[in-house]
Amino acid sequence: MLEVPPRRLHGPGPSPVHPNVLQALGQPCIGHMDPAFMEIMDGVRSMLQKVFKTDNAMTLACSGTGSAGAEMLMDNLVEPGDCCLIGVNGVFGGRLADKAGRAGGTVHTMEIAWGDVFDLDSVKQRVADLKPKLVALVHAETSTGAHQPFEGLADEVHKHGGLLVMDCVTSLAGVPVEIDAWGVDAAYSGTQKCLSCPPGLSPVTLNDRAMQKVKKRKTKCNSWYLDLSLVGNYWDGDRAYHHTAPVNMNYGLHEALRLILEEGLEARFDRHRKAHEKLRDGLTKRGFKYVTQEGHVLPMLNCVELPKGVGDEGKLRKRLLDEFGLEVGAGLGAFKGKCWRIGIMGEGARDEHVDFILESIDAVLN
Amino acid sequence: MLEVPPRRLHGPGPSPVHPNVLQALGQPCIGHMDPAFMEIMDGVRSMLQKVFKTDNAMTLACSGTGSAGAEMLMDNLVEPGDCCLIGVNGVFGGRLADKAGRAGGTVHTMEIAWGDVFDLDSVKQRVADLKPKLVALVHAETSTGAHQPFEGLADEVHKHGGLLVMDCVTSLAGVPVEIDAWGVDAAYSGTQKCLSCPPGLSPVTLNDRAMQKVKKRKTKCNSWYLDLSLVGNYWDGDRAYHHTAPVNMNYGLHEALRLILEEGLEARFDRHRKAHEKLRDGLTKRGFKYVTQEGHVLPMLNCVELPKGVGDEGKLRKRLLDEFGLEVGAGLGAFKGKCWRIGIMGEGARDEHVDFILESIDAVLN
Repeated sequence: MLEVPPRRLHGPGPSPVHPNVLQALGQPCIGHMDPAFMEIMDGVRSMLQKVFKTDNAMTLACSGTGSAGAEMLMDNLVEPGDCCLIGVNGVFGGRLADKAGRAGGTVHTMEIAWGDVFDLDSVKQRVADLKPKLVALVHAETSTGAHQPFEGLADEVHKHGGLLVMDCVTSLAGVPVEIDAWGVDAAYSGTQKCLSCPPGLSPVTLNDRAMQKVKKRKTKCNSWYLDLSLVGNYWDGDRAYHHTAPVNMNYGLHEALRLILEEGLEARFDRHRKAHEKLRDGLTKRGFKYVTQEGHVLPMLNCVELPKGVGDEGKLRKRLLDEFGLEVGAGLGAFKGKCWRIGIMGEGARDEHVDFILESIDAVLN
Repeated sequence: MLEVPPRRLHGPGPSPVHPNVLQALGQPCIGHMDPAFMEIMDGVRSMLQKVFKTDNAMTLACSGTGSAGAEMLMDNLVEPGDCCLIGVNGVFGGRLADKAGRAGGTVHTMEIAWGDVFDLDSVKQRVADLKPKLVALVHAETSTGAHQPFEGLADEVHKHGGLLVMDCVTSLAGVPVEIDAWGVDAAYSGTQKCLSCPPGLSPVTLNDRAMQKVKKRKTKCNSWYLDLSLVGNYWDGDRAYHHTAPVNMNYGLHEALRLILEEGLEARFDRHRKAHEKLRDGLTKRGFKYVTQEGHVLPMLNCVELPKGVGDEGKLRKRLLDEFGLEVGAGLGAFKGKCWRIGIMGEGARDEHVDFILESIDAVLN
């Protein structure tokens, strides 16, 4: 039988998974057209609506990881020639721009320093100038730890006939995500961050305005697998067979969502905030420096520059993994070789986890 | 906790899953960049090579269900304007044609009656006439139960500079699939059929000829998520981060493949054949009629017309599910309302399963 080493997951995801979720994953498989599975899908959908804070009927678990959810939105919401405005302040904004381009969009990027967040007044100005059909920003930039404000942007986007799209892969269930209240037209997430479920599904939600765009497309969506005019009917409609859904992954997500709602979103946000404060104090005392714009640091993803003179970060990370089973993430792009990304997501956002992280770091730094 | 009703899975997939595989699925999640996970990926790859009967370095588990694997091949191997020749003798050939079209291909279909298989001499003639850059056929048409011969086709396709693509979603590990010996350039499968693993991954393999096409593309692949020039490096290359792989699903596939190789492919094919003979005898005695061309009936997918006068097939299927927990599949397309698709795949291809199927059918028909 397969052997998996014990790990403490404190990188950029996957995050620690509750034993209940693992148990749910291992339940016997049933058919993807079984009425009992349809009930499970309904449960996943209604719990996702609560976590996304939305009434959107088109709320589903896309059958791929977070990047598939991003691609589902770009492929369905962008038609060839559509003007798209994408914020790039890290890896994941760059990917959105790439995907919008592959979908045929005429892509305009807004680029600022990695670690910074976009000033919404500047974004509104660009929107007013360009009148884009789609505006996308990353709510929680997993490569930099930046927490992007969204509130107050939608009206300007809508005024010019555009759709507002949000990447909330890392933020969902860790900090407030208010799809309806913020006027976000479509958003996607991943299961392996603050939802604390293994990777394999991407929660996606679209409002009626976004679904109108899907329904009125003049061209076929690039992708058959992710085509919401087809897969949408499987989740919300006549339930016609489209593809064979990842049945057991949906069991896991169902249980993960149940645990989240049992805890309560506010309590969960609070737990992330408190664990972050403890971690931030500990890291700062040890000479780590946050690279993220002040006042916009995500609680669940701590992107920090290593103290000077501690030696090769790759070797230190390897020691953390080998000696303590502790995974922290490497820096990406501009932060490669300089930074660590320390995640305290979902089940990992607890005092004892923070203690373990700091003690392990002490052991390899001294 | 989630409750899942007990089911006997004898539809077109998912198939019954071995308890070991469920146990593997529920192992603690580790990171997608963890050296221990890379070892698991290597294990998945080398076992997939054995099951596909190939030395192809580019052999991987695509992070989606079978339809994602199909789309990965069409998106990567078809460039805008490429002439594609696709065999359509059921639902899944039709989907391939749709996907090749979305990838920008100029699609020519060969259409024959559902249930029949393509005569290879006629296919070769079409290949000689059209000189297509890609020829795709479905080895095991899950909507009709037809078992398409492949041997001897590749040379003609290659002679005209084309690639031969095979859908072996339902056949892999149930009947011989000889990627290298048959000269197949690229193929995809699904985990939830004869591999007896829950749905969620699509085994994919491409030879060097196919990878040359990927490397020499003049246009970007439609999809970022499925772009083999990116995801290929994660499985075979510098192991650069692309997307977060579905870690636990890969555990399950690893264990499923281990069990298959422990049994031995020949023994497994033999088991499928024997279970099929017993099922076929039983069904024929009860007045069911195979709709598939004689001599080309798949052992693992039995597409049969119901005996006359037994009443509404939907109600009977519902009784099988409600009273016996037995899932059999509905007919699709031309066979809707007339046929059942009875699967004996992987763990389900055993005497006792066939007895159970026949006894349950007797109970609802009498």
